[in-house]
Amino acid sequence: MRFHSIVHSAVAIALAATFSLALAADGPPVTPAQVVDRAPASHWRAIAPDDLLVMDLGGGRRVVIQIAPTLSPAHVANMRVLARAHWWDGTSINRVQDNYVVQWGDATEEKPMPPGMAPTGEGDYVQPMGLVRARITALPYADSYAPKAGFVDGWPVAADEDHVWLPHCYGFVGVGRNMSPDAGTGAELYAVIGQAPRQLDRNIAVVGRVIAGIEHLSSLPRGSGPLGFYKNDEKRVAILSVRLASELPDGERPRFEAMDTGSASFADYLRLRANRKDDFYIRPAGGVDLCNAPVPVRPTPQDVMPRTR
Amino acid sequence: MRFHSIVHSAVAIALAATFSLALAADGPPVTPAQVVDRAPASHWRAIAPDDLLVMDLGGGRRVVIQIAPTLSPAHVANMRVLARAHWWDGTSINRVQDNYVVQWGDATEEKPMPPGMAPTGEGDYVQPMGLVRARITALPYADSYAPKAGFVDGWPVAADEDHVWLPHCYGFVGVGRNMSPDAGTGAELYAVIGQAPRQLDRNIAVVGRVIAGIEHLSSLPRGSGPLGFYKNDEKRVAILSVRLASELPDGERPRFEAMDTGSASFADYLRLRANRKDDFYIRPAGGVDLCNAPVPVRPTPQDVMPRTR
Repeated sequence: MRFHSIVHSAVAIALAATFSLALAADGPPVTPAQVVDRAPASHWRAIAPDDLLVMDLGGGRRVVIQIAPTLSPAHVANMRVLARAHWWDGTSINRVQDNYVVQWGDATEEKPMPPGMAPTGEGDYVQPMGLVRARITALPYADSYAPKAGFVDGWPVAADEDHVWLPHCYGFVGVGRNMSPDAGTGAELYAVIGQAPRQLDRNIAVVGRVIAGIEHLSSLPRGSGPLGFYKNDEKRVAILSVRLASELPDGERPRFEAMDTGSASFADYLRLRANRKDDFYIRPAGGVDLCNAPVPVRPTPQDVMPRTR
Repeated sequence: MRFHSIVHSAVAIALAATFSLALAADGPPVTPAQVVDRAPASHWRAIAPDDLLVMDLGGGRRVVIQIAPTLSPAHVANMRVLARAHWWDGTSINRVQDNYVVQWGDATEEKPMPPGMAPTGEGDYVQPMGLVRARITALPYADSYAPKAGFVDGWPVAADEDHVWLPHCYGFVGVGRNMSPDAGTGAELYAVIGQAPRQLDRNIAVVGRVIAGIEHLSSLPRGSGPLGFYKNDEKRVAILSVRLASELPDGERPRFEAMDTGSASFADYLRLRANRKDDFYIRPAGGVDLCNAPVPVRPTPQDVMPRTR
């Protein structure tokens, strides 16, 4: 079998770690997978239940989205209002464009907003650098889309001298909008399912990332209409419910944790993502793209939830 | 509708061009889509029938792969031998790993190779810079994975002073292999279906790219086995046939052309991919990733083939 041929996803990483540990001695980790596998509990941070959106599509298909209140406060506040109002229940996935996005929301575009929604503007696409400056772990490689890039509070970020923003990486969730200056409400959402469309950074609000169940979105049939919208209404995928994990009974809450991006484990992980050298990799790149060093996220070990994958 | 909200794929580009032309005056192009739409015939290059692999999966699902004889001569020579021997007929797609690859070949790993296959080695992962140096259009932005990056003969390339190689961009096709120093034969192949795994560059042979029908691979159910291999044999997707377009009767040959990466149109396209500013984009990035400026490829206008999309 060609199992080792190409190792990447969280699942693969877990396996590779097992393989490697079986093979290798107890020296320092030589693969990102080994770093993740060996990171002590103190190098992980629990994700708050109020920062998890649980979207059920039926047939056991559950998508879990982590939202980012610090880096996208205005749109995330609206999304919590929408979730608590159960506004997304009965809406649908309406667009699947290959190597781009899966988009969902109210296909009729006539469903009224719940009370408590706040206005948004283009100023909400970025946040003041002062909010996070002291906690940023820099990416020590050039970024094609921003003067600076790095990681903070478990998230990848792009930045300039004065501002910081979330990048459009694979699995990241953004807010659909109409032509500028519309900035979207947070009701119409999309997830990236291809090469990071970073040209959208600072042009649209990024509000979070899919941390479980992305395959239930990325493997959907592509739409045949303009920009991948489904022409045929029957093709739309019904959204049964969207809830904040904090709204769910304790026993039904998914629990996840992200690696502390300020930890020594993350520094090792980032170094090894940029310098692959093991039984398979013969030529380290000496660099890594911001979107190609995904922050390790996992169900908390004591998690009692059935896992999505 | 939020049609304009996010424009990216070839399909979308075509549409955006239509919209924009309808809206905009006849000034210079302001979107990459307009550049593609307006590029004169002299800025396109026909792709040779001997460089097209046509893979039929049944149910009208056709995947067309352009192979790269100049940049991957050893493996491409083997792939032509395999295609002419109809070796892939009756093999299958055996692995689908989210945000990584779709892999196909002989699941039994016991099917004998046809006569005429040549040995390969790790030296085949790169080619001498001298082969293409004079024709390279440089990407004027830093690349995270190589000292240099650019475009030549319709392909994106990464390079150092002495060597040039094809990058692992979305839709690009590579050769599965076992542990180093195995370099693969060209019989076991994969296509990238996620964020460009550039860490594989110079560690594995890249032999071409999917230019039509990628959605028939990227939307397949993800495998539940290790690294996305299908656990259940029934899930494997049968490959009915793989042919070089040059083997097909003239009337059945797909015909495609790629934009001349040395043309003024491509220079405009690249500049606008890096500096989006129009009715939707308010903040140009001032840069673009090598894998986020896909070389425009289209069916030749006089194409008589039924199109895959």
